[in-house]
Amino acid sequence: MSTDIVNVKTIGVLTSGGDSPGMNAAIRAVVRASAQNDVSVYGIKHGYYGLINDEFIKMDTHSVSNIIQRGGTILKSARSDEFYTESGRKKAAENLEKYGIDALIVIGGDGTFTGANKLSKEHNINVVGIPATIDNDIIGTDETIGYDSALNTALDAIDKIRDTADAHERMFLVEVMGRDTGFIALETSIASGAELALLPEELTNIKEVKRQLHEMLKQQRRSSLVVVAEGDETGGAVKLAEKIKDDFAQYDMRVCILGHIQRGGSPTARDRVLASRLGAAAVKVLKEGHSEVMVGVVNNALKITPLRVAISKKKEIDHRLIDLAKVLR
Amino acid sequence: MSTDIVNVKTIGVLTSGGDSPGMNAAIRAVVRASAQNDVSVYGIKHGYYGLINDEFIKMDTHSVSNIIQRGGTILKSARSDEFYTESGRKKAAENLEKYGIDALIVIGGDGTFTGANKLSKEHNINVVGIPATIDNDIIGTDETIGYDSALNTALDAIDKIRDTADAHERMFLVEVMGRDTGFIALETSIASGAELALLPEELTNIKEVKRQLHEMLKQQRRSSLVVVAEGDETGGAVKLAEKIKDDFAQYDMRVCILGHIQRGGSPTARDRVLASRLGAAAVKVLKEGHSEVMVGVVNNALKITPLRVAISKKKEIDHRLIDLAKVLR
Amino acid sequence: MSTDIVNVKTIGVLTSGGDSPGMNAAIRAVVRASAQNDVSVYGIKHGYYGLINDEFIKMDTHSVSNIIQRGGTILKSARSDEFYTESGRKKAAENLEKYGIDALIVIGGDGTFTGANKLSKEHNINVVGIPATIDNDIIGTDETIGYDSALNTALDAIDKIRDTADAHERMFLVEVMGRDTGFIALETSIASGAELALLPEELTNIKEVKRQLHEMLKQQRRSSLVVVAEGDETGGAVKLAEKIKDDFAQYDMRVCILGHIQRGGSPTARDRVLASRLGAAAVKVLKEGHSEVMVGVVNNALKITPLRVAISKKKEIDHRLIDLAKVLR
Amino acid sequence: MSTDIVNVKTIGVLTSGGDSPGMNAAIRAVVRASAQNDVSVYGIKHGYYGLINDEFIKMDTHSVSNIIQRGGTILKSARSDEFYTESGRKKAAENLEKYGIDALIVIGGDGTFTGANKLSKEHNINVVGIPATIDNDIIGTDETIGYDSALNTALDAIDKIRDTADAHERMFLVEVMGRDTGFIALETSIASGAELALLPEELTNIKEVKRQLHEMLKQQRRSSLVVVAEGDETGGAVKLAEKIKDDFAQYDMRVCILGHIQRGGSPTARDRVLASRLGAAAVKVLKEGHSEVMVGVVNNALKITPLRVAISKKKEIDHRLIDLAKVLR
Repeated sequence: MSTDIVNVKTIGVLTSGGDSPGMNAAIRAVVRASAQNDVSVYGIKHGYYGLINDEFIKMDTHSVSNIIQRGGTILKSARSDEFYTESGRKKAAENLEKYGIDALIVIGGDGTFTGANKLSKEHNINVVGIPATIDNDIIGTDETIGYDSALNTALDAIDKIRDTADAHERMFLVEVMGRDTGFIALETSIASGAELALLPEELTNIKEVKRQLHEMLKQQRRSSLVVVAEGDETGGAVKLAEKIKDDFAQYDMRVCILGHIQRGGSPTARDRVLASRLGAAAVKVLKEGHSEVMVGVVNNALKITPLRVAISKKKEIDHRLIDLAKVLR
Repeated sequence: MSTDIVNVKTIGVLTSGGDSPGMNAAIRAVVRASAQNDVSVYGIKHGYYGLINDEFIKMDTHSVSNIIQRGGTILKSARSDEFYTESGRKKAAENLEKYGIDALIVIGGDGTFTGANKLSKEHNINVVGIPATIDNDIIGTDETIGYDSALNTALDAIDKIRDTADAHERMFLVEVMGRDTGFIALETSIASGAELALLPEELTNIKEVKRQLHEMLKQQRRSSLVVVAEGDETGGAVKLAEKIKDDFAQYDMRVCILGHIQRGGSPTARDRVLASRLGAAAVKVLKEGHSEVMVGVVNNALKITPLRVAISKKKEIDHRLIDLAKVLR
Repeated sequence: MSTDIVNVKTIGVLTSGGDSPGMNAAIRAVVRASAQNDVSVYGIKHGYYGLINDEFIKMDTHSVSNIIQRGGTILKSARSDEFYTESGRKKAAENLEKYGIDALIVIGGDGTFTGANKLSKEHNINVVGIPATIDNDIIGTDETIGYDSALNTALDAIDKIRDTADAHERMFLVEVMGRDTGFIALETSIASGAELALLPEELTNIKEVKRQLHEMLKQQRRSSLVVVAEGDETGGAVKLAEKIKDDFAQYDMRVCILGHIQRGGSPTARDRVLASRLGAAAVKVLKEGHSEVMVGVVNNALKITPLRVAISKKKEIDHRLIDLAKVLR
Repeated sequence: MSTDIVNVKTIGVLTSGGDSPGMNAAIRAVVRASAQNDVSVYGIKHGYYGLINDEFIKMDTHSVSNIIQRGGTILKSARSDEFYTESGRKKAAENLEKYGIDALIVIGGDGTFTGANKLSKEHNINVVGIPATIDNDIIGTDETIGYDSALNTALDAIDKIRDTADAHERMFLVEVMGRDTGFIALETSIASGAELALLPEELTNIKEVKRQLHEMLKQQRRSSLVVVAEGDETGGAVKLAEKIKDDFAQYDMRVCILGHIQRGGSPTARDRVLASRLGAAAVKVLKEGHSEVMVGVVNNALKITPLRVAISKKKEIDHRLIDLAKVLR
């Protein structure tokens, strides 16, 4: 976390990794806050791929008009195997120099930050990360950009499934995103009143799952909903269905995999405000000379975390919510 | 289509088969229109299962307050193998007699109508059908209750997928409901600007699918969306992906199966108005002495169709829309 | 309705009057269908204002990518007093000639069509109109583009108001758009289960309104909702409240004016498909040599109506729906 | 804040004041958490009115099935002038005694808490408050139940208005709820990218408002949006329009008052989780012997605040967000 005072005149901004709602709001805030600080901005398309392949576009206040409400990212995202090589990062650094770019703001998740950190160390380029991923698995911020939107999209879908589950008195297994973490699964299970949630953070005992479901069904529940994180050790909703369906043969068990709808859509108010705060903060901390850091919001205050810390481990789930889910079933 | 003038004093109403948004609006209209005509109403829970197992509840105007906007069905739906037997239908008829019910209104799809028709013929009970299924595959009505809502739910999901497809310049194969008919697939593909739609009504030539996709990708399309009806002969989106993925290896191809979210949710304005019209019409035609008929709306006017006709074949898709989809790609 | 066979090579397209959801889908269809027919397209910004002031932009297939789902109009709309003068229309015609434009497609309501008709007659320019207005008041088409979206937006708002009305057992007077016609008021009142609807098409007798409300409140209704078209002779919801509030002093009467939210938002599936059909049809009928006509969809088939007929009177409301509303209250 | 250990066996729960989305989720959590703790629950309908007039209903786990997603409150809310009198509260206390109720949970805002506090002091009844109001103006909790939902409803409406503002290049003045506080106005203005926000917390200088608008319009903004809290000293959006319209005569200025739609609708994920946490927490703190306290969540942890503190002043707005709004314009 170097903090040499630098006179930042021109910055680059890119989005990388899986897209999440609110990325556009973050881009907008970076561009607008830069304009206020007399900093020029280049948008780099297709993430690190475009950084290497020279997809730089000049941006001003008007470039980001009327995008705050849009899903996806106007700068696009892409994979770049080449950026994982030293020679790839060298090309990237040369491009940044070519455009006179002093510093780089990267919007994405831990993969994005790992790459940025390397680029900074190898080529002495100041970088700041903005955490944006629907998975909410980054430490150093209470929430990542896109998480609240994904929660509400998933919840809206589960509400619809509850309608039909209830009409038919069926059992539904709904798989939500979350490869390593159960944030979406846990909060949507509480918010939808699901009977059970299976999370990567907890050992899933199939025998115990069956016991609990049987017990709830005995209480005259007429439909039941199990929310499963894709990264749960059972292997997701399809696998879970295979393991338990014989025990619940009288129910017409159905599987729904919500999938990529969770990444899209217009961001919620919360995600737009968070993205606006972090976009403006990223410009501010760059101006203050910080580098190799991520900006986040913790307990409603801005927090600066070294990138190496941010990528060192996944954020832990809140065990109070796991307990709460059990009380409210 | 018997039309003996009968003095209908008490009717039963039930929902059966797959639920669809607007069923509650139809139940409400049946109950309210009956009240206006001094007809008593019993709601029968769990469709034909409840008809056999005596799940009758008296309903009045207040029973249907504040339900017009709700997905699912307050009367629930269920399967009943027993109703497919003569002895099952005999029990059903005895229950109807026990409650002094003169006539029955059934809300559902062609399976529902087939059962109702048999009950009427065997036990001389007047029945009227109201077409409610998201599949829109019933002849005798321009639209079935729930179709418009399902379209909009599927479209909203596809819009979200387009956001992420566009951010990543990916190819997405999206599977929508439609086991025998491609109504949802065709209209959502037009409305979402999808690159291609695969329908059960058309032969799917995989070679031709690949050719068209390649051609569109040559035109600098950066993302592409294929909408697949679950009943398409390829076997759905997962099977399609297996068949074409090697040819599009440079794209990060993804599959989404929208599934049961399409059945739930608050009905659209159109579905609520249609359900209200058909619910009121069903009471009216029963009062007029019709039986073994379905009520529908064709060219904005009420139409009465014999149940035997309604169940004789599936509604055909509009080929002008298939042509339109090709023009607008 | 001239039908001289013309060889249309270049057309212009503009949106004018109040915007409505689906205008972008119509623009897209015009551009795509033109491309399929080897017709060049100029988009004219700001409606007739831009026609006079030379705001022409060349459009191709890519210009209309990813706009089908957006509210508003990418071509913008504006007023133009100058176009109501002969000299204004002369300038417009000169601009069309300058760009080699053979024919003009105008997307809007009756004011838009009146202007287009004059331009055509005075300067021998072929014009085709596409009906787009949330008011649904144009004859020659069952629905105008934007109507279905506005209905659903208004309905969604009324559903929310019903929540709070119901929680507090209050009386709400909700004003919806419709200066001359009550389409939105009538259909949303049925779809929301409103207690009463006041329409411009019916004489509103305040004494009778009070009587009906009193009667419904006697039936143990605990909340009530009255939908008022802005053009109702009472003068809208605020005026209605003044006239009846003293009679319902025990209720905490509230007024909501939904206003311009009804014009915006992503278009529904139905509006996008209608706009796609009409956009493609407009190009087709121009190619066939028609002029001074409007394209519409009646009973699910394309219908061509002379502009002078389309602007000669307002569409009449469906009296069967007025009767239905009374039955279902 | 007494904490005598009491053996709570039976509690009452009511909702009072303006309803807010998530009240049902809170009721559900109170009932379910009570069941887990072998505590019986009476729901009291119509708030303090029902407390005085004996509208008590026994509730169990099934009473609160399938309500977590619903707006409004199944227990209804109402005004009660009588509860502001000593004799009214005496009747209320007698009813509580009659049903053997040891403690009372009240869900609402500061008016609700003031009443509960008096009841507790005068009649030695343990009370716990759960903060639920869309205004977010209660200290002792980062957010109140319903605030996040109201934000998103208002934002969705403003997004729609932006569509039409943008299509017509108009100026819109949008009034949102907030009689004493500008939370909704401030956050929706940031999230919608509004040009200006007028808040009750800041002096509004009309001359300065005009200057800022003129300056922004000079920057080639083609539409502009001003968000006004109803409690701003200008007197709301209608009054503001009167004061500035002559200076912006070339714009077609429009006013929208969002009104009561902001109170209704299905609660967001965040509001449902918050309501679930606070409902369960309220039961817990009652069991622990607390009384005359409010439960809240501050920095993601449960916080207990004496009711007299909670009602002593309004929560202050976050000035960092006011600054942020200025940077991002």
